[in-house]
Amino acid sequence: MSIAQTAERTRTFSWDDPMIPGQLARELSGLEFLQAMIRGEIPRPPIAYTLNFQLTEIEEGRAVFTVEPAEYHYNPIGMVHGGLAATLMDSALGCAIQSTLPAGVYYSTLEIHVNFIRALRANMGEVRCEAEIIHVGRSTATAQARLVDAEGKLYAHSTTTCIIFRPDGD
Amino acid sequence: MSIAQTAERTRTFSWDDPMIPGQLARELSGLEFLQAMIRGEIPRPPIAYTLNFQLTEIEEGRAVFTVEPAEYHYNPIGMVHGGLAATLMDSALGCAIQSTLPAGVYYSTLEIHVNFIRALRANMGEVRCEAEIIHVGRSTATAQARLVDAEGKLYAHSTTTCIIFRPDGD
Amino acid sequence: MSIAQTAERTRTFSWDDPMIPGQLARELSGLEFLQAMIRGEIPRPPIAYTLNFQLTEIEEGRAVFTVEPAEYHYNPIGMVHGGLAATLMDSALGCAIQSTLPAGVYYSTLEIHVNFIRALRANMGEVRCEAEIIHVGRSTATAQARLVDAEGKLYAHSTTTCIIFRPDGD
Amino acid sequence: MSIAQTAERTRTFSWDDPMIPGQLARELSGLEFLQAMIRGEIPRPPIAYTLNFQLTEIEEGRAVFTVEPAEYHYNPIGMVHGGLAATLMDSALGCAIQSTLPAGVYYSTLEIHVNFIRALRANMGEVRCEAEIIHVGRSTATAQARLVDAEGKLYAHSTTTCIIFRPDGD
Repeated sequence: MSIAQTAERTRTFSWDDPMIPGQLARELSGLEFLQAMIRGEIPRPPIAYTLNFQLTEIEEGRAVFTVEPAEYHYNPIGMVHGGLAATLMDSALGCAIQSTLPAGVYYSTLEIHVNFIRALRANMGEVRCEAEIIHVGRSTATAQARLVDAEGKLYAHSTTTCIIFRPDGD
Repeated sequence: MSIAQTAERTRTFSWDDPMIPGQLARELSGLEFLQAMIRGEIPRPPIAYTLNFQLTEIEEGRAVFTVEPAEYHYNPIGMVHGGLAATLMDSALGCAIQSTLPAGVYYSTLEIHVNFIRALRANMGEVRCEAEIIHVGRSTATAQARLVDAEGKLYAHSTTTCIIFRPDGD
Repeated sequence: MSIAQTAERTRTFSWDDPMIPGQLARELSGLEFLQAMIRGEIPRPPIAYTLNFQLTEIEEGRAVFTVEPAEYHYNPIGMVHGGLAATLMDSALGCAIQSTLPAGVYYSTLEIHVNFIRALRANMGEVRCEAEIIHVGRSTATAQARLVDAEGKLYAHSTTTCIIFRPDGD
Repeated sequence: MSIAQTAERTRTFSWDDPMIPGQLARELSGLEFLQAMIRGEIPRPPIAYTLNFQLTEIEEGRAVFTVEPAEYHYNPIGMVHGGLAATLMDSALGCAIQSTLPAGVYYSTLEIHVNFIRALRANMGEVRCEAEIIHVGRSTATAQARLVDAEGKLYAHSTTTCIIFRPDGD
């Protein structure tokens, strides 16, 4: 492998202390926390720098993440690894649910189910992962998401089940 | 945020042309291809450098991937993002199935289902994602995987459905 | 158990030869076949008599099944068994996909994923299982479904992955 | 359709008050309750009469249901409806988890995921649905199941996620 090739295929990135947002998460509602992240007042989580994706839209019950598929996301058979789509789905599904929760109420993802429709490839431009809640109850919540390109073409879809922990009397 | 902190929270990595393994994948059986990757004769895929995981064991119908959870895998709420487990599952499940396929036969992952049991955290040491086939038929295959730590404690489990493309008469 | 109770809790039903619709399925498009079933020209399948549900609406890419939950659908803990919802989902999801296929093209369900939101109970009136396709490609298809009551309240939701077998050159 | 055919294709069945086992479920541990059902001391649930299946083995963390596939389980395309396998899976997975719970602790099934491998047909003899727990924690549990024939041939496999409700201090 030539030096030139190596030079082109190197990436350097930095991230912030992941415990800072964790502390703020306890004081803000889910929606306030995620809005502050979009405004850049709360650092993006490390994984978002590692895979280079971001939360771009949030409202109550709905979240959108975007990423530009690149060579450093590739699997061994010449296309983007399915783990990128799964990671975006997990993020978007979780945030759609988090955006409905008041301060002091927490959630944890129990399961995600991801259907892969088409392969993502480098140089296809930005793709959007759009999630919306299906049901948010007292102790559980479900949501669904779709991964689409700029023309709305579908690449993957997903659902999740989360458990919700509410302090007594809430 | 101090300069010192930033300096500690920076990572630089390089990867290889992802089209090289893709070409070899057409000439070797699935098992030969994956064995060559473990021996370092075929470059690891870019995503494996990005998230810093590796294929460590392969035999017919079984694959093991390992990773050391680190801060750059973290989500915004102070633990490793579920996307890391999902990415390992997708890799291990796919390779367990690929290891059963002769040269010239291809597969594509249709869906993965991931159950999250416990959170991964930095400094917990290496975790192993162990996958094994459940059924490999003419046109579809299924497999299951578990993500465990050095003591065998379970962090996540998963299943997949893949479609298999066999040339006519195979 | 008194004789009176037994008399109230007895059901007798009949069904038709399930091989008759199987033969017609080979000659008609999916939509024509399912429309003929709604018109009563093709016998309902035996399972529809056993569990007492029916296909009530069909159009290209969309199917609706209905059932009136009853005591003979109950599980041991005092509510309708989840298998009734799963059976309706499997039916509606499969028919939504079948309705898009020309004559001579077949499908097989690879997996269903069902989320249970609320329990069904006897005397709640008719519930509707509404399915629609998400993606129908050359060799695979996916669809989603919701189980709702007359007020639109959600009881379960589901997705499926099917494989499609198209004769060569189709 | 001849009268003779109709006569052969009629089934009559009876069931017991489904509220009786519900009351006992509150007083016994999960294992005691299910053992009493196998011994016939607690009535089988109505759905078990409707689809003609039964719980045949129970131990802590493991449950086996059996059924003899018959024509009255058929779908419109000449084989047993996938809903029968899904119903058995839901039963066996739930009972495997229930068998680990003390008296006064309840569970509810959040989701099941079923992979269909081969079609069931009438006259194939009894099939067994064998479930075992994967993880039982304080607030959630997961389990897996397989549907096999007398030779151990695999027809379907499944997983579930359940939520567990424990009284305070338990």
